[in-house]
Amino acid sequence: MEAYEPPYYAAVFTTVRAEDQSNYSETSAHLEDLVKDVPGYLGVDHAQTPGGLGITVSYFRDADALTEWRTNTEHRAAQQRGRLQWYQAYTLHVAKVERSHGFVRTDAQQSPTAG
Amino acid sequence: MEAYEPPYYAAVFTTVRAEDQSNYSETSAHLEDLVKDVPGYLGVDHAQTPGGLGITVSYFRDADALTEWRTNTEHRAAQQRGRLQWYQAYTLHVAKVERSHGFVRTDAQQSPTAG
Repeated sequence: MEAYEPPYYAAVFTTVRAEDQSNYSETSAHLEDLVKDVPGYLGVDHAQTPGGLGITVSYFRDADALTEWRTNTEHRAAQQRGRLQWYQAYTLHVAKVERSHGFVRTDAQQSPTAG
Repeated sequence: MEAYEPPYYAAVFTTVRAEDQSNYSETSAHLEDLVKDVPGYLGVDHAQTPGGLGITVSYFRDADALTEWRTNTEHRAAQQRGRLQWYQAYTLHVAKVERSHGFVRTDAQQSPTAG
């Protein structure tokens, strides 16, 4: 969970899972390893509501890095399998990040009621 | 979970919750009502891993709509309270969506192994 130096790209992938999740976690772990080799890959954030929506946001330095990942042979095979098997529905938003910032709580920022 | 007609804006908000969540859900529900009144607001996706990362992606037609929401008085008060109380850490990425697409499974796309 990091703010990078703009501009960079974010691929926002929102999913509703189908029933058949066989081999999903193995494939997902393998792709997570693969994407790290893409020059310009910055990182990923993932959240999954149990029985609900999943959101994966992948960050890349530029459009070329994103294109390399989108067209990666193993990733393409997984995309097809996702449509056939793992996902009931999904949406992809590819976006250029114009600004970003992060916040991390320090003790000085603790709410009086939190202590 | 929708793909809109590009270009539009996505605000990707990733969070790690702090311990004190008092009044969080009431405030969150109220803000979800408020944002719908912002001209150019398109929608929102949210996923929350239990005990882990939360990701909220809000979609707006243009930068003006996003600015109106960012500077909304009640929203600003909630942002401050978030830093004081609800969030251990967060990151915001503001991005212009250049392309998007959606997929919804139909029966013809069912995997043979899905039964």
